[in-house]
Amino acid sequence: MPFCSSCGAATTQSVPEGDNRPRQICGRCNCVHYENPKNVVGCLLEWQGKVLLCRRGIEPRKNFWTLPAGFLENGETLAEGAARESLEEANAVCEGIQLYGLYSLARINQVYVMFRATLADGFCEAGDETLEVQLCAEAEVPWDELAFPIVADTLRHYFNDCRTQHFPIRNSDVQGSPAGGITVVQQGV
Amino acid sequence: MPFCSSCGAATTQSVPEGDNRPRQICGRCNCVHYENPKNVVGCLLEWQGKVLLCRRGIEPRKNFWTLPAGFLENGETLAEGAARESLEEANAVCEGIQLYGLYSLARINQVYVMFRATLADGFCEAGDETLEVQLCAEAEVPWDELAFPIVADTLRHYFNDCRTQHFPIRNSDVQGSPAGGITVVQQGV
Repeated sequence: MPFCSSCGAATTQSVPEGDNRPRQICGRCNCVHYENPKNVVGCLLEWQGKVLLCRRGIEPRKNFWTLPAGFLENGETLAEGAARESLEEANAVCEGIQLYGLYSLARINQVYVMFRATLADGFCEAGDETLEVQLCAEAEVPWDELAFPIVADTLRHYFNDCRTQHFPIRNSDVQGSPAGGITVVQQGV
Repeated sequence: MPFCSSCGAATTQSVPEGDNRPRQICGRCNCVHYENPKNVVGCLLEWQGKVLLCRRGIEPRKNFWTLPAGFLENGETLAEGAARESLEEANAVCEGIQLYGLYSLARINQVYVMFRATLADGFCEAGDETLEVQLCAEAEVPWDELAFPIVADTLRHYFNDCRTQHFPIRNSDVQGSPAGGITVVQQGV
């Protein structure tokens, strides 16, 4: 953020008084510009023992399979955001949406909030950013072609939880990097 | 965001191609500036049946009582942020930190993520932005002097959950406004 979004003047980096981190501060209007992690909201939609997967039509990870998910927008709740993404990416309507998993991705300043829901009427259809949609039983999931470790982790937990019909909400940290390998570490276990 | 943080030129509001919401777009470099909700992370710290409350030393709600909480910073996980806020506001060390509650505040573009933890050694002391700290049993909580509805909701659930020793993770939406009255609506109940 080299320029001030309030007045357009150049910013410099320094620690504001009473703060303990460097921030971008405007040299003209003294506005302090904070940068914080963004939320990605997504949903695992279930229909008669199968889950809805989308093949990504955009980068990153184009052609790989994912759960409907995207950035939370201003003015919406977490669940509203997850339902909106399901509609936009897969024309899928969420019923009985429930919180299912949180993932902190500190390395890239993101927090994923995943829900689970029933797919209304079993209907889905590729949205603009999706190449195709598919309802997959556990054995049909393309495990080697999933877009992100969070997608694999959510699906793995979901199919395990189905066996016990107990769906605990998990809080996990995603550690490492694509180059060095990524690990999903669940908290409190 | 009237000016572009990348190049300093003026922005205008319009819907980018392939998008469905108005964004601030730079008239010179065409950079699209997204604005998204921010996360506030906090912690309920427990010590021998009492919980740690902080009397706020800064606005908003100066002099009112709250749980340690603040904005999640880039580069940290949700739990790390909640532990850092506990340390900064109350010199309190979290042990066995666990996810406890999510709150969407769509009206002000915030998401609260609340944890619970044991206060290590029972030690706490007011930090820079805190006037005083206090360990309160349920009957000692200043219910009429709490800073935010989320604080009251978290405390109320905590003391109820203590009776059953079952601490479910709740996802709630905070609706309404200070002027018209605020309601905390729990999802999936």
